[in-house]
This record gives sequence, C-alpha cells and structure tokens, in this order.
Amino acid sequence: MKLVTFTHNGVTRIAALEGEKVVDLNAAYKAKLASEGKIRAAQIAEAYVPADMTGFLQGGAESLSYAKEAVAYALGNNESDVPLVFEKSQVKIGAPVPNPGKIFAVGHNYREHILEMGRELPSHPVVFAKFANTLIGPQDDIPFYPISEQLDYEAEFAFVIGKKGKNISEEDALDYVAGYAVANDVTYRDFQRRTLQWLQGKTVDGSLPMGPWMVTSDELTDPQSLEMVLTVNGEERQRTNTANQVFTVKKLVSFLSTIATLEPGDIVITGTPGGVIQAMDPQVWLKDGDVVRIEIEKVGVLENKVRAVKGE
Amino acid sequence: MKLVTFTHNGVTRIAALEGEKVVDLNAAYKAKLASEGKIRAAQIAEAYVPADMTGFLQGGAESLSYAKEAVAYALGNNESDVPLVFEKSQVKIGAPVPNPGKIFAVGHNYREHILEMGRELPSHPVVFAKFANTLIGPQDDIPFYPISEQLDYEAEFAFVIGKKGKNISEEDALDYVAGYAVANDVTYRDFQRRTLQWLQGKTVDGSLPMGPWMVTSDELTDPQSLEMVLTVNGEERQRTNTANQVFTVKKLVSFLSTIATLEPGDIVITGTPGGVIQAMDPQVWLKDGDVVRIEIEKVGVLENKVRAVKGE
Repeated sequence: MKLVTFTHNGVTRIAALEGEKVVDLNAAYKAKLASEGKIRAAQIAEAYVPADMTGFLQGGAESLSYAKEAVAYALGNNESDVPLVFEKSQVKIGAPVPNPGKIFAVGHNYREHILEMGRELPSHPVVFAKFANTLIGPQDDIPFYPISEQLDYEAEFAFVIGKKGKNISEEDALDYVAGYAVANDVTYRDFQRRTLQWLQGKTVDGSLPMGPWMVTSDELTDPQSLEMVLTVNGEERQRTNTANQVFTVKKLVSFLSTIATLEPGDIVITGTPGGVIQAMDPQVWLKDGDVVRIEIEKVGVLENKVRAVKGE
Repeated sequence: MKLVTFTHNGVTRIAALEGEKVVDLNAAYKAKLASEGKIRAAQIAEAYVPADMTGFLQGGAESLSYAKEAVAYALGNNESDVPLVFEKSQVKIGAPVPNPGKIFAVGHNYREHILEMGRELPSHPVVFAKFANTLIGPQDDIPFYPISEQLDYEAEFAFVIGKKGKNISEEDALDYVAGYAVANDVTYRDFQRRTLQWLQGKTVDGSLPMGPWMVTSDELTDPQSLEMVLTVNGEERQRTNTANQVFTVKKLVSFLSTIATLEPGDIVITGTPGGVIQAMDPQVWLKDGDVVRIEIEKVGVLENKVRAVKGE
C-alpha cells in the first residue's frame, strides 16, 4: 500500500494512493463499518484507523489490515454521505509522516561517498538529527533561505518505524519498519561545517522533502537492492544502490534501538552516496528554480523545485 | 509561577506549584468559569488552559493570565466536585514539558569549560540535538544502560519557548521565552565521541532530567546572572554563573530562529561549565546510586539518583 498524508479543503488526513485515486482511510473504514451495521462506526474507525499517520502507524499490522479492507470497500462503494475517494488532482499530498517524534539521519553510509569525502569506513554509524520543522512533501518547493549560499542535496532512502521497541535484534528489525520513502536531506553546507556539530546546517525549515508516499513494508521486503538516482535539472548527479550501504536498514534499526526507544512514526534517513555538490569542483550550489529529482526503485520519484525565499 | 506536569491516579496534567500545593490549572480554571455561570466552562477551559504543557504554552500570555486567576480561585475554593488542589506528596512530578517538538542543546558555551576542553571561543554556537525520549522528571532516577561505562553529567540552564517565531531579534528574544528550568545533559561519553556526531551519546533514553519545575519568565527577568552548582554525592563538581555564557539566552533564541521556526514547548539547554568527569584525572564515571544535584539560583534544585539498568 502507498500511504500518504493529504490535505483537502484545509483538512489534513491520511489516505492510500491507488493509481490516481486517493482513498481516505478513516472515512472509508467508518463507512464500511456503518454499512455492516456497527453502531459505534466512527469511534471504532477512530481507534483502529485514525486520520493521522502517527496514530495509524501505532495500530501496527492490525490497523494496516483494516485499512486494506477499507480501500477495497471504498473503491467499490463511493456513495457515502462524505467523500471516501478523491482524485489525486483534487488534493495536496504532503510529507507522509508530518510530525514524527524523531528523525535520525545517518552520515557516511555508502562506500563511494565515504571514499569521495576522504574518510575510512566507519565502525559505527554516524548519526545526527533533523527536527520535524524540516519536513515538506512531494508537491512543496524547497525553501532556500538567504542565510547561506551553499545549498546542497542528498538523495536518501528513508524508512519509518511502525512499532515501539528497544534493543531490537537485527533478525527482528524489519518487523519494526512500517514502510519506505524517498527523502532529500537538503543541507546548508557552510552551516553544517562551521561548527563541530552538523545540526544547524541540517535542521533548517523545509530541508527534508519526503515522499512521494510511504510504501508499506509488506510490499517491499528487500530494502537492500534498490537503485537510487538523483538528478538536478535532468542532469544525473548521484547514483547508487542500497546494496552499497555500510549499515543496512536491519543494522540501523537494531543499533538505534540500543540508544533510544523507537516509536511509530520515527523516521530514519539512511545516508547519501557520492555526488553531492560539496564534492564537486567547482561547487555549483543549488539555486532558485533548480529541480531536484530522486528516484528509488520500487519506492517512487520525489521531485521538488528550489525556491529562493526573499525578504525574511 | 512554577509550572509542573504531574501525574495522579495515572492521569497526567499540568499544575502550578504553590509551596506544597499542586493546583490543577485546567480543573481550576474550569471550576472558576463554572462558578461564574459560564455555560461552556469545560470547553473554554480546554481552549485557554488545556491540561498539557505544550497546549498551554501555545496560549501564551493570555493563557498564563487565566492560569493565575485559576490558581487564586482554587486556593480559595477547593470545594469542587473534582479536586483542584493536591498536596505535593500525593502526586508525581514529571518533566515540565514531556513532549517538546525540538530539544536544542548548546555545546561549549561557558568560557571555563571551553578552556578546560582545550578549545577556542566559538564564533557561532555549537548546537546539537536530543529527542524527547530523553526527558525524565525531578522524581525519576537516571537510567544507566549497560551500553557504556562512561556516564557523565552536565549541569545546564534550560529555557522553554512560549511563542512561535522565526528570525527573532535579540531585542525581542525574551518575549519568546515561556520560562526556565534546571536540566542535566546526561552523556555517554564514549558514545558521544566515537563518531563525528555527538547524537548517539546524547539521546539515550532518560538522559535529560529536567525540572524541578519551570519558572515562568515574568518572574525571572534576567537569565544572565544566575549561579549554578552541581554536586555528586554532596561533592561540588561544577560551579559557574550564567553571566559566563558566551551565547546568552537572547542570542540563542535569535540565532536558532534563523535556522528553524521555534514553537511553544521547544526546549533549549544552554551548555555546561567546566568540571565534567570527562575532564577529570582519573575519570571516575557515574555509577549506580550516585546522586547528582544541580542548583540554579532563582530557579530551583534538580536532584536525581543514578540507577543501573540490568538485564536489557
């Protein structure tokens, strides 16, 4: 299933994307329950298939199975008193998980990028943070604030936690992953590098485009064989395969869960390969109007335009 | 006002601490409105003085003024059908803001600590992150997970954002601060230092004791003249004054708001002075049973015991 968070008439809810159809999961499940004569349809739907992504993910596999039933119902019965299915063109798609508790980012996780930066293969993952203020969706522009001239991209394969856990074994790790998405770890390079810690170049508002949806992990069972390509205005800049990751999704789930209790909705972006502007000569930074497109095999395409923010 | 988040009979709500009295702000405001004959007392109280700290802070100065009215009412009229006032001994006090969107931590912000570590005075704040999984309250023990032997303390003066803002001037900065608290930036030193980025040694579960309450900024107007002392088992280890900060509260609010939109409930811990175990010779790390006590003038005392976690 392709899960999205969408906005229609100013109201933000979650949906499954089926082709060009956007199925409102909470509304569809409620309608299905009502059609079966359930007397607390709204409350049951709210409990099992709430309209916000983090709440939905907290329901785990059980909620996902009800969501699938809801989609089947809605596609066959769009005659509810409230709309269950929208056309994609009618809604705005946002970041799949708009308000995660944690966003872990991994540095130096592709062999060729590590070599490009002149570093040795790490024995432990390099982990840093972004906050939720960075998240934007596939239809948003990347704001380029006039605090720096060094705006760079980083194509990243992202996963979302679907189950609370601590000290998770690598063997069990993929059971804790709700799904996968494409992300762009947009970075203000000079801000990243002017102090010892990268956060100030990494958590600028709007610097984490994510989408175009979240593919649920039941539909993508091998996260370590996916081709990833980034282009700027059509020119290829980054290309790798998640097979090249030093720390796999399994290893990252296990490692991070020894540090912090992982919670549904937590996001992990798993690092970027070689080809960032930082490593180019000359360094031609991103500018207003540039289009950054990232495609990950079996996941999707995330494309955002850079938009210079003026007068702030 | 001293604001706390407390738990009673399994329910967590906010209160004002008045001596040994814990005044439930939402319940008290609702009771006051009801006593005035307001017909939507519960809904109005929920809108202006909600029972969770982040929601309450979003109401800004207006909500704070209603909270003060509520306290005055409750202390004079504790004959509601629900309890408005508890004894401190009846409740558990937790971290003041249990679920902030961001926790910014500042490194190298006291002149003597910078010299102790052999570094130069920074031109920009060194900023890193902790996530909300780290927060514990004044009555909690500091969990010491068996992932490392190098557990260290860091006495920190914390502030909490009370108003949404971006690109805030230093002149206006203190208007965006809701209040102040004591914090301990508990750190697993080897995890902090084994990669380039400190996060993995900084965001371990339970590694940010905070409290004992939040003093609202209307009652503490000069944050840059406060003595701070940390002891371990009664032995003084750290002593400084916030006058020694390289980057003041005003500067930090202004700087951070150029990076990220600040939101009510966001926490900033403003750095630690010299005297951490890392800089001792020999390094006698914290151990099970140690009591770490931090006192900040005009704010309060935060005291937590270290508790070794076994069998995880």
